[in-house]
Amino acid sequence: MYSFKNDYSEGAHPQILNALVESNMEQEEGYGNDSHTENAIFQIKKLIGNENIDVHLISGGTQTNLTAISAFLRPHEACICANTGHIAVHETGAIEYTGHKVITVDSEDGKIIPEKVQQVLNFHADEHLVKPKLVYISNPTELGTVYSKEELKILSEFCKSNNLILYVDGARLGSALCIKEANLTLSDMCNFTDAFFIGGTKNGALIGEALVIKNENLKEDFRFLQKQKGALLAKGRLLGIQFEELFKDNLYFELARHANEMAKLLREGLKEANFKFLVDSPTNQTFPILENKLIESLENKFSFEIWKSIDDNSSAIRLVTSWATKKEAVLEFIEEVKK
Amino acid sequence: MYSFKNDYSEGAHPQILNALVESNMEQEEGYGNDSHTENAIFQIKKLIGNENIDVHLISGGTQTNLTAISAFLRPHEACICANTGHIAVHETGAIEYTGHKVITVDSEDGKIIPEKVQQVLNFHADEHLVKPKLVYISNPTELGTVYSKEELKILSEFCKSNNLILYVDGARLGSALCIKEANLTLSDMCNFTDAFFIGGTKNGALIGEALVIKNENLKEDFRFLQKQKGALLAKGRLLGIQFEELFKDNLYFELARHANEMAKLLREGLKEANFKFLVDSPTNQTFPILENKLIESLENKFSFEIWKSIDDNSSAIRLVTSWATKKEAVLEFIEEVKK
Amino acid sequence: MYSFKNDYSEGAHPQILNALVESNMEQEEGYGNDSHTENAIFQIKKLIGNENIDVHLISGGTQTNLTAISAFLRPHEACICANTGHIAVHETGAIEYTGHKVITVDSEDGKIIPEKVQQVLNFHADEHLVKPKLVYISNPTELGTVYSKEELKILSEFCKSNNLILYVDGARLGSALCIKEANLTLSDMCNFTDAFFIGGTKNGALIGEALVIKNENLKEDFRFLQKQKGALLAKGRLLGIQFEELFKDNLYFELARHANEMAKLLREGLKEANFKFLVDSPTNQTFPILENKLIESLENKFSFEIWKSIDDNSSAIRLVTSWATKKEAVLEFIEEVKK
Amino acid sequence: MYSFKNDYSEGAHPQILNALVESNMEQEEGYGNDSHTENAIFQIKKLIGNENIDVHLISGGTQTNLTAISAFLRPHEACICANTGHIAVHETGAIEYTGHKVITVDSEDGKIIPEKVQQVLNFHADEHLVKPKLVYISNPTELGTVYSKEELKILSEFCKSNNLILYVDGARLGSALCIKEANLTLSDMCNFTDAFFIGGTKNGALIGEALVIKNENLKEDFRFLQKQKGALLAKGRLLGIQFEELFKDNLYFELARHANEMAKLLREGLKEANFKFLVDSPTNQTFPILENKLIESLENKFSFEIWKSIDDNSSAIRLVTSWATKKEAVLEFIEEVKK
Repeated sequence: MYSFKNDYSEGAHPQILNALVESNMEQEEGYGNDSHTENAIFQIKKLIGNENIDVHLISGGTQTNLTAISAFLRPHEACICANTGHIAVHETGAIEYTGHKVITVDSEDGKIIPEKVQQVLNFHADEHLVKPKLVYISNPTELGTVYSKEELKILSEFCKSNNLILYVDGARLGSALCIKEANLTLSDMCNFTDAFFIGGTKNGALIGEALVIKNENLKEDFRFLQKQKGALLAKGRLLGIQFEELFKDNLYFELARHANEMAKLLREGLKEANFKFLVDSPTNQTFPILENKLIESLENKFSFEIWKSIDDNSSAIRLVTSWATKKEAVLEFIEEVKK
Repeated sequence: MYSFKNDYSEGAHPQILNALVESNMEQEEGYGNDSHTENAIFQIKKLIGNENIDVHLISGGTQTNLTAISAFLRPHEACICANTGHIAVHETGAIEYTGHKVITVDSEDGKIIPEKVQQVLNFHADEHLVKPKLVYISNPTELGTVYSKEELKILSEFCKSNNLILYVDGARLGSALCIKEANLTLSDMCNFTDAFFIGGTKNGALIGEALVIKNENLKEDFRFLQKQKGALLAKGRLLGIQFEELFKDNLYFELARHANEMAKLLREGLKEANFKFLVDSPTNQTFPILENKLIESLENKFSFEIWKSIDDNSSAIRLVTSWATKKEAVLEFIEEVKK
Repeated sequence: MYSFKNDYSEGAHPQILNALVESNMEQEEGYGNDSHTENAIFQIKKLIGNENIDVHLISGGTQTNLTAISAFLRPHEACICANTGHIAVHETGAIEYTGHKVITVDSEDGKIIPEKVQQVLNFHADEHLVKPKLVYISNPTELGTVYSKEELKILSEFCKSNNLILYVDGARLGSALCIKEANLTLSDMCNFTDAFFIGGTKNGALIGEALVIKNENLKEDFRFLQKQKGALLAKGRLLGIQFEELFKDNLYFELARHANEMAKLLREGLKEANFKFLVDSPTNQTFPILENKLIESLENKFSFEIWKSIDDNSSAIRLVTSWATKKEAVLEFIEEVKK
Repeated sequence: MYSFKNDYSEGAHPQILNALVESNMEQEEGYGNDSHTENAIFQIKKLIGNENIDVHLISGGTQTNLTAISAFLRPHEACICANTGHIAVHETGAIEYTGHKVITVDSEDGKIIPEKVQQVLNFHADEHLVKPKLVYISNPTELGTVYSKEELKILSEFCKSNNLILYVDGARLGSALCIKEANLTLSDMCNFTDAFFIGGTKNGALIGEALVIKNENLKEDFRFLQKQKGALLAKGRLLGIQFEELFKDNLYFELARHANEMAKLLREGLKEANFKFLVDSPTNQTFPILENKLIESLENKFSFEIWKSIDDNSSAIRLVTSWATKKEAVLEFIEEVKK
């Protein structure tokens, strides 16, 4: 049984484990004040080309989202996101728990366009309604689609002129940055947003997301807020060492590229076999539409998520590839499907 | 420079790292539904001798405290803890952030006695005050002192007869369980409390605390609350594998015993040299009172925390030993002090 | 300029003011422990025909909703309401501020049907999503429509069999209870719900809503939660005296009937003049669709809310009548419209 | 039975009720946008002599405190108050419910001095602890003592130079302002604080506190926060009319003076009879120490609070006078005591 269920089925890239082993008996300061974290942050700043950003390493995506968003907003301020947004549907109301409404806008492909945000602003006219203040997007989106540099720029300008914070959940950011057509770099991410995070967990780390805060107004006292949410590890080195490895010699991008390539291979095989897709995703998530009978038979050899019922006879499934996906498994899947 | 600053200066016990490496390419379910977590929980239940408990693996102590306490209380209910309690002073108001008041009682040695709790109950008489509902202790306490089986039993009975939840922060529980005089086992911990956690981070793990919930009323939907607080790791295996190793063949207790022994060695050396202590701690934290001049000179070779100013010329320092503490370092410290 | 803007434009019914004046120099206990509050609660219990309910008098609707809902739910539990629900759109995220997600379902007429709730339950399948636990409706709805006894019964049974709390915002409950066709009594409200409130502010009181809690599990310690939210007035007599008057000799129903009659008069006049309505409301809110030009001209003599743009030339407006609405004003409005 | 239990036993000053009656059938805008509220705010600004302040009328003290403090602080920031502070002990954890720790400092007379605040600042050194940001005092204090102009100035300067917000709970502010020795005016209150409120409920109003925000940084979007906390009355006129009356022709000060005079009369009578006091209070609260036997006998004719047990035979009681206190009742009490 081979799993295409997600990009966190395996442990970490061996190079990361190796670095953990080698540094193991060094004595380091706690709570992210260690030399590895310092070094990882240095590398990230260098790669982005901006020394004035703040970088914080946090265990996971939900924790990063809730810590950052609740740090950025006043109590009556709200987030706007797509109806498929992770904070809207898959974080057990973490944002609401911190007191903030999550306003959703319809979206076919998981992306948000300024027109939709404008409608939200128009509706929220006075103090009887929350004040929309932060636009949350993920890149890639939950549906695997990507904001290109141009699209991000447009959304960024809209946010700026409407005094909205633009925050990007980059749980799978590596995959987006390695899509040529998106033409997007880490520097662009920084230039066009107020804050975003670079996901490690889904790209080869055991745990870890690197939150980048560019907007000066959002930086103050962030470590207090991290500690308060339980998001400051005593052994912060665990995060530091991993990001050190990921951003030394571009391992992060290599891993993302592999995930994308495996997804492409999958898609090409499925297209060849004339399968349709729920959405046109270039990243490491693929959503083919298969007959339910075929799905059942595939489940004998592969595990994956059934995403959405399409009609009585067919459903879209989700296939996720990662840094760890084996080419043979992909080929076997395609072969199986073609039978 | 050798550090006695805390018990989380190094990485993990090599056996744990080894297990991470060996299991690395296995494909596992996410969010704690993996086989290693299942196995770790099985071992913990067996060791405690109670199959009806719920066990949840969580990254760190603050996160465990805030997730558990906010899961257990209704909005108007409050915690009671010692004035030195970790939740009262060192978690950046994490409990208050979840909406609950932390009521402190005076304590010389970091421990709570029923009389003090009774005073709090007497004072909180009506709906204009919060309703005290949960007693938080840590074992060992922040001052390294230990609740013995008998003391825990007395507090437990008091809580039961006053309808109070007894919750124990066991960040350094291993150390307490290896103090012969305390006569305390994991089973006792379970029998005498409603919930408690077994600390991994400070006893050889990279991260990880195992929360045990015995009280039937406190169990429901706990995983929802974990996810909501960002306390459910995608790669839950990271926690599962570590606790599997710690509780296979008693590694957990071996490591704690080593930490205790190193502390004992330190204390004996210091006593021999006629130093006094701020508090009489049998566990892996030691609080000798030294002249400030001596402290300054020691700081050239060792790092440690200055805990409290005693008078113009002397201060108490905190020396923490751990599974990783080298005997030679301890001996060197004693020698240095004796000079 | 006469206002049809809302049902809280005037002060209180003179009988209420009179009672305030007459009782003014009596010395009473504070915080709702006064004889008037006791008496008001006694009357409400008698009218409902249930001595086992708890009744709490609270200043306003938003305060009642947030205090009650946050008292009833655990942190991961969520409300379900119509997309027009007051808690979803007009309380500045008050429910989210208490930590709970508000899930909305589509509704044309402001009402919720079991099928829609079932869809929400189906979608919320595991701990990565919030747990829907409370169904919030208002009766009448924000659009002036009414749940009949039969409709309420059906929703009630659905909620019971799905372990959902049914809570009714009765800001304008008087109006609903005086619609013959709805065939609904205060006793029915109590029988078919877990908790609901009887609105005073919009039916002749200066301030005040009477929250009725029937479900035994939701009663405990409610006064603590009231005090914590600032929802326990020092001079609770202010609420007690008002509800005493409202429920002595059925003043409450007389006032609601007057409001309904004035609305009916308005609607009949508008129908005669061939105007259409946004929604078919039998209660004290009326939503006629008028040409924008006519609206502008009416605004010289009357104030009201423009509810919704219908097309380039016309909009729906909202006309609200109340216990204080003068018949002459209604007739004048109709005449003006007919010109 | 005559009550000295508190200053909210009676209704409102007749002039206020009269104004409610006279304005009753006027149609006004809701939510504090009415002409009376506008006028009341105008009067308050004039009296303070500062047009740039923001004034908000809110129902009660707890509600004002929780709305203001949670509006002013970021999530990791905390309040400092005396151990007797109302927010610390008598608001059911309302501030903690909004997420903020309340740090208490010891105080004999209910007042805070800069030295105590400095100690708190010294202790809260890093991100593992909350960040003290707001100093909460009440004037008069819970013990009836008063901050003089000079004392307030000193505390104000300390706060300013330490970047702390100074916020004053003025539930009984009228009484403090009418103590000649304190030499304090409403203008001083504004000059020396960032925000404070002028209590109406305990000085002749049915409900109502007037929150004054001077600090520019604390003003933004306050009405959103009010609405979110359920602290924006639909019939805001109820508050507006009352404050209009209180500040037209100085009724507010007349009422407070009467309360003070009645307290003085009480105290002089008690002193004459050689009774001692728990604390030396010049305002409308008096804390004589009486033998328990005497207390029991007094309870047949008067109601009051037993404040604190002094020894086995005696206790301090609290006698509160108000705008409504009858001179005869005071004289009768003294006579009774002298027997």
